[in-house]
Amino acid sequence: MAAPSPPSRPRALLAAELGGGTQASQRLLAYSDALLSIIATVMILPVAHTKIHPDQKLGESVQQLLATKIAVYLMTFLIVTVAWAAHVRLFQVIELIDDVLALLNLACMMLITFLPYTFSLMASFPDVPFGIFLFSSCAVIIGAIQALIVVYGFRHPYLLNLEIQESENQEFYKYHILRIILRGPTLSFFAAIFSFFFIPLSYMFLGLVIFFPHVSHLIKWFKRKFLGHEEEVPLESFTVYLTEPLSKERVEAFSDGVYAIVATLLILDICEDNVPDAKEVKEKYHGHLINALNEFGPAFLAYFGSFVTIGLLWFVHHSLFLHVMKATRLMGLLNTFSLAFIGGLPLAYQLTSDFAEKSHNEIEAIQVSCVTIFFASIFQFGIWIAALFYQRETLHPFARYGGKEHAFMFAKLALYPCVSLSVFFLTCIVSELSTTIFHLTQIIVPFAFLVLRLLVRIGLLALRSIMSLSRRRRNVLEEEEACLSAAEILS
Amino acid sequence: MAAPSPPSRPRALLAAELGGGTQASQRLLAYSDALLSIIATVMILPVAHTKIHPDQKLGESVQQLLATKIAVYLMTFLIVTVAWAAHVRLFQVIELIDDVLALLNLACMMLITFLPYTFSLMASFPDVPFGIFLFSSCAVIIGAIQALIVVYGFRHPYLLNLEIQESENQEFYKYHILRIILRGPTLSFFAAIFSFFFIPLSYMFLGLVIFFPHVSHLIKWFKRKFLGHEEEVPLESFTVYLTEPLSKERVEAFSDGVYAIVATLLILDICEDNVPDAKEVKEKYHGHLINALNEFGPAFLAYFGSFVTIGLLWFVHHSLFLHVMKATRLMGLLNTFSLAFIGGLPLAYQLTSDFAEKSHNEIEAIQVSCVTIFFASIFQFGIWIAALFYQRETLHPFARYGGKEHAFMFAKLALYPCVSLSVFFLTCIVSELSTTIFHLTQIIVPFAFLVLRLLVRIGLLALRSIMSLSRRRRNVLEEEEACLSAAEILS
Repeated sequence: MAAPSPPSRPRALLAAELGGGTQASQRLLAYSDALLSIIATVMILPVAHTKIHPDQKLGESVQQLLATKIAVYLMTFLIVTVAWAAHVRLFQVIELIDDVLALLNLACMMLITFLPYTFSLMASFPDVPFGIFLFSSCAVIIGAIQALIVVYGFRHPYLLNLEIQESENQEFYKYHILRIILRGPTLSFFAAIFSFFFIPLSYMFLGLVIFFPHVSHLIKWFKRKFLGHEEEVPLESFTVYLTEPLSKERVEAFSDGVYAIVATLLILDICEDNVPDAKEVKEKYHGHLINALNEFGPAFLAYFGSFVTIGLLWFVHHSLFLHVMKATRLMGLLNTFSLAFIGGLPLAYQLTSDFAEKSHNEIEAIQVSCVTIFFASIFQFGIWIAALFYQRETLHPFARYGGKEHAFMFAKLALYPCVSLSVFFLTCIVSELSTTIFHLTQIIVPFAFLVLRLLVRIGLLALRSIMSLSRRRRNVLEEEEACLSAAEILS
Repeated sequence: MAAPSPPSRPRALLAAELGGGTQASQRLLAYSDALLSIIATVMILPVAHTKIHPDQKLGESVQQLLATKIAVYLMTFLIVTVAWAAHVRLFQVIELIDDVLALLNLACMMLITFLPYTFSLMASFPDVPFGIFLFSSCAVIIGAIQALIVVYGFRHPYLLNLEIQESENQEFYKYHILRIILRGPTLSFFAAIFSFFFIPLSYMFLGLVIFFPHVSHLIKWFKRKFLGHEEEVPLESFTVYLTEPLSKERVEAFSDGVYAIVATLLILDICEDNVPDAKEVKEKYHGHLINALNEFGPAFLAYFGSFVTIGLLWFVHHSLFLHVMKATRLMGLLNTFSLAFIGGLPLAYQLTSDFAEKSHNEIEAIQVSCVTIFFASIFQFGIWIAALFYQRETLHPFARYGGKEHAFMFAKLALYPCVSLSVFFLTCIVSELSTTIFHLTQIIVPFAFLVLRLLVRIGLLALRSIMSLSRRRRNVLEEEEACLSAAEILS
């Protein structure tokens, strides 16, 4: 009849309910990342599926698309990214989960997956307050659930990050994380109220939701840079992870989700559109399936070309983050922009496979593809540049300026911007460029990667053989140092 | 001019090229899992999007669907799962990757994502050999690429699993893994050859690709069980991971991908179909957006109901695998079946949201949903039963029979089969059941989980108070033991 002694309970709960405690949280986060990345990307489908008449000029159609559907896509992508960033911060504080937290998180995910619909409403009825109101209400409820998660977490402190658990001013951390999480919902709340009086103002509030964290960070940076180092918060109360906004693992997981869904959206289109009709094959091609499939040749070529491009862009991203130790806020922002353009690739694929016949639209379709690929890859390049600025904190030693892998990484990242830009200028000069040639170029690029490695090696060898013996010796020492520290990280 | 000394090279390469070596492989695997799970699931979309006329009887239509599209979906799902299992085995042997392996793996992924298309061809033209030939060729090329990965891995032994690296009979391991990987492609090769002579035989070969591993395992099991313990291979040459076919992490990653894509396919449909037309709103509803949206009420309810169901099934899966230490082959097979039915949920959603009006089809739509949910959850239950058979190896102590969490886990897993079965029988008795009530039931279930925990606790408390003092003491000791071992695992 004696109740179990109180001090032993939390430990028993921890062991029994959480089993592989931390692991539990990891899988919840992986699942959330998958959901969020798919939701962010999937809104490109309504854009890509908009039918364009072959005799309609692509330029006009693209403008028409731009007006609504692309805007919905971009808004969804950015808002979901903001929600994802808040989610990352939240689960940096709460490291273990239990059933209640898992269910609360699922409720939160359900509302986030509903956001794209509210955007579609807003885009279709920009002057009706209901769309904004619906979106803002969702955002407010999401904020409320996340606040509930924080409160629940601080009531059961064994769920928290160890550092916070042991810290003396838990209250401070609690309000700090609540402030971060409720920033967006508060702005949305004002947007909801103003939607009934003055709609432009509520749109402005929504824009603030996306850009506020970055703007405030920028202002702080300017203050620190130009007005001297003023930190009003006592520094000792901040731990590393509160100033470090994104965890590298979750940036990777989110990016992987986007790349994976984009790669597979392509085959979905192929399967739905390019299976010939049984009747048509019988009547038109006298039962010869291969002849019927011949007609879809350009679509298959477009598929393989696009898959190779997405695969390699993932490969570049993967190589890049292999060399990254820590992602700064700026790197996260650039990554978001890069991913937004990656998400646009299904549209590019749709255009190039639709306009496979020679026409003026064909050139424009290739140009749209080139621009999309260019921006996706140049923002990747931007991540690298941003990392180089603070290379001591962000990069592994062998990838830093002068490191063994620096030159090759540079070449890898520069490849796609260069190729896409040169194809774009080629389309301006040669008006005969066909999508077939374009897709073949896409398929050839991976071999360029292997050639690149060879070229970089030959280049480095040539450089080395020019250098004097004494210099080489110093180099070897440095290399060994880099290897050693890398080995330290590995162990 | 002096070349770098040969023995130091591999280490330098390891450090410089792979950076966080193992991590590199982890991300490649996570990305592959995401791609494979999406590909496996996404083929439900053509099934779900098949338009059914409201005056057509659902029974007939479902049969019509069954004939081709559902078969394509199931075949794709199972074949992709087989490819995934081979991929898991492959990267249990090769633990570190470099650029060449990453590119080879991407090429492999590209061909795997193309498989659903070959299935669509096979389903549309079952009596034309070209579809089978195309599929088999893809399978053979995939096998060739994977064999290339193995050969490359064994040529650069620092990429291999440490145990194999240090083992003396590397050749044995090499041929063992090659045999596992080339099994499917060899069967496909025969299928390709026979497709031109006798098509049924080649379909049989394709069926073998899916079931061969399981059949051969079953035969071995029977041999061991009934004909005495005969192992012809020297036992000492086998390490744990070669007899352990699936790594738990990758089962989780693959399952997460399936759950995530199914949850998000729903919102895609909502966004494409349920945004009212601006013109219609003006003319029919005099500009009142809310009235127009009212019409879509049932669709929203269906969305939230389905999302809750998928979310909770994920939650049950998550809880289950939290208690699992190791996944056996049978558990993997049951998990595949469960996931195949999870993938069918978008179809169920489509049916219940299409037939929201009262009609005979409405009941049948609910029945299809119930059957899908029942099979998805009963196979989850099956995983648990299969785990209990070998509970010493597969389950954490506190989840085993008699453990602290055993009863609650049992209740959690039994909830969905019971609910779906009882709703199904309700539809047979009460002919008035509407989809609205069905979806409301779906939304209420999560609260049942919380009540369940309460009930299980009350039940256990009651049980305890009945027991004698001496027994309780023994129990407490056992519990503490369980806690201790769980704590050991955590640390």
